[in-house]
Amino acid sequence: MEPVFSSVAIVGPGLVGGSLGMAIRRRALASRVVGIGRRPASLQEALDVGAVDATTLDLREGVQEADLVVFATPIGAIGKLVTEAASAMKHGAVLTDVASTKQAVIELVREALTDRPDVVHIPTHPMAGSERRGAVNASADLFEGCVCIFTPLSGTPQAHVKRLRTLWEQVGASVHQMDPASHDSLVARVSHLPHLAAAALLECVTPEQAEFAGGGLLDTTRVASGQPALWRDICATNAREISRAIGDCTEVLRRMQELLDAGRLPELEELLGRAKEKRDGLLARREAPRADQ
Amino acid sequence: MEPVFSSVAIVGPGLVGGSLGMAIRRRALASRVVGIGRRPASLQEALDVGAVDATTLDLREGVQEADLVVFATPIGAIGKLVTEAASAMKHGAVLTDVASTKQAVIELVREALTDRPDVVHIPTHPMAGSERRGAVNASADLFEGCVCIFTPLSGTPQAHVKRLRTLWEQVGASVHQMDPASHDSLVARVSHLPHLAAAALLECVTPEQAEFAGGGLLDTTRVASGQPALWRDICATNAREISRAIGDCTEVLRRMQELLDAGRLPELEELLGRAKEKRDGLLARREAPRADQ
Repeated sequence: MEPVFSSVAIVGPGLVGGSLGMAIRRRALASRVVGIGRRPASLQEALDVGAVDATTLDLREGVQEADLVVFATPIGAIGKLVTEAASAMKHGAVLTDVASTKQAVIELVREALTDRPDVVHIPTHPMAGSERRGAVNASADLFEGCVCIFTPLSGTPQAHVKRLRTLWEQVGASVHQMDPASHDSLVARVSHLPHLAAAALLECVTPEQAEFAGGGLLDTTRVASGQPALWRDICATNAREISRAIGDCTEVLRRMQELLDAGRLPELEELLGRAKEKRDGLLARREAPRADQ
Repeated sequence: MEPVFSSVAIVGPGLVGGSLGMAIRRRALASRVVGIGRRPASLQEALDVGAVDATTLDLREGVQEADLVVFATPIGAIGKLVTEAASAMKHGAVLTDVASTKQAVIELVREALTDRPDVVHIPTHPMAGSERRGAVNASADLFEGCVCIFTPLSGTPQAHVKRLRTLWEQVGASVHQMDPASHDSLVARVSHLPHLAAAALLECVTPEQAEFAGGGLLDTTRVASGQPALWRDICATNAREISRAIGDCTEVLRRMQELLDAGRLPELEELLGRAKEKRDGLLARREAPRADQ
């Protein structure tokens, strides 16, 4: 395969950024991948696992040759870092981010690129990852079978979108396009609400009771092992949609409580049956990820 | 090892009952294990996987030689089946159940055994299992490292409790004793609430949104693939405690919503940090299940 980009810079080569670098290098989708970070130890880790060809602590130096710059940092750092990098970027470069929320991040990047109308921001969200972090947990196969959502801005040249799309498809993702607001509403429900619900479940268990937790509680709360600071940023930048999703969830829980209190078990069973059907459907699609594409 | 019981009858040799039979046979903890069920196909399955030595569709015939009778049926069937089996049971036999709720089941069994004061009911709850069902999914190792809660009634001869405890320990479980009310409150929080919350999360996702679900939602909702009828019985027999746990959970979710709406992100982060700590603790104990015993 011809390289899709000549030089790629990855700002924050951790779990997601590092996995992308590794996947790009493994498939020769770029001639060179540079990792940019703040901590020498993390950069060394990214080098050691083969996520990047070279590293630098200097953001402006790191991005200057790149025709694709990937911001894979926590959401809270994106605005500041893009501002810092902006004037050093190559003319006509593509800038992308892999953040879990899109509307607020688009706004942050737009402001940071005010003086660089030639740089093209294409927001993406690869729906892969885990509660683990760091390049040490990166994998060239992290994106195999995952969905990568693109929320391109109006007016973005199709050729650029197509090029980035090719990159993601080559690393194994299936790309879907939607508008940023739909994305944020979607992830509030399939990702952010489950995270907060997991944390809420843990709040309801005393340390003594936790000693008796089985596989059920462990699985249900896996996502709660994620980094609180990352999740604070996600919540801060998708607050309205998450709040709405919490409202819907508490409404369902209250209905369940009513049914329990009134002994209306057949209705509760019906609700559980609907949930089982939906969940079995998720699983069937997951186990045959290519079947419906 | 000497057999702990001479003859064991398992009423309902499905996932849990079948796994127990298999584990008992593998370790020669009984001279004979008889499986009792309603469907010839299920009994044949139990025989085929080696969960039992023999099977019968006749409950009264199946229990008459047993010095231990295990009721591993759905909760909704226990009262009727114990009533039917009662007068056929051997003098002084031990009767146990593996139900997920204890107070209501103890009451059902007490009523069913009114005319058999010699039969000793020892209620237990092995906290193992999965959303799968049937002897075809049974495993002799299902109970390895799991907790089995005993909620013996006052006045139960210690020798009987000890014998049943030995059986469970030999199949790999770690036995904990507590009163039935504490058990029901515990499982409402570590098992029943997570199940209902998983169902509630699925209610908040449209079928279109479900197409984009990643590993997070899949794990968080795994338990929702359980059988609705089994869960109806669980809910029916632990309604008060589950209702109370739902109340606590909606309270936490409402607090999260308030923090989101008011932009009080540091407080939300603190809550998520507490959840992460608790969850990481669960995991550490799970990964070293013998370390603190």
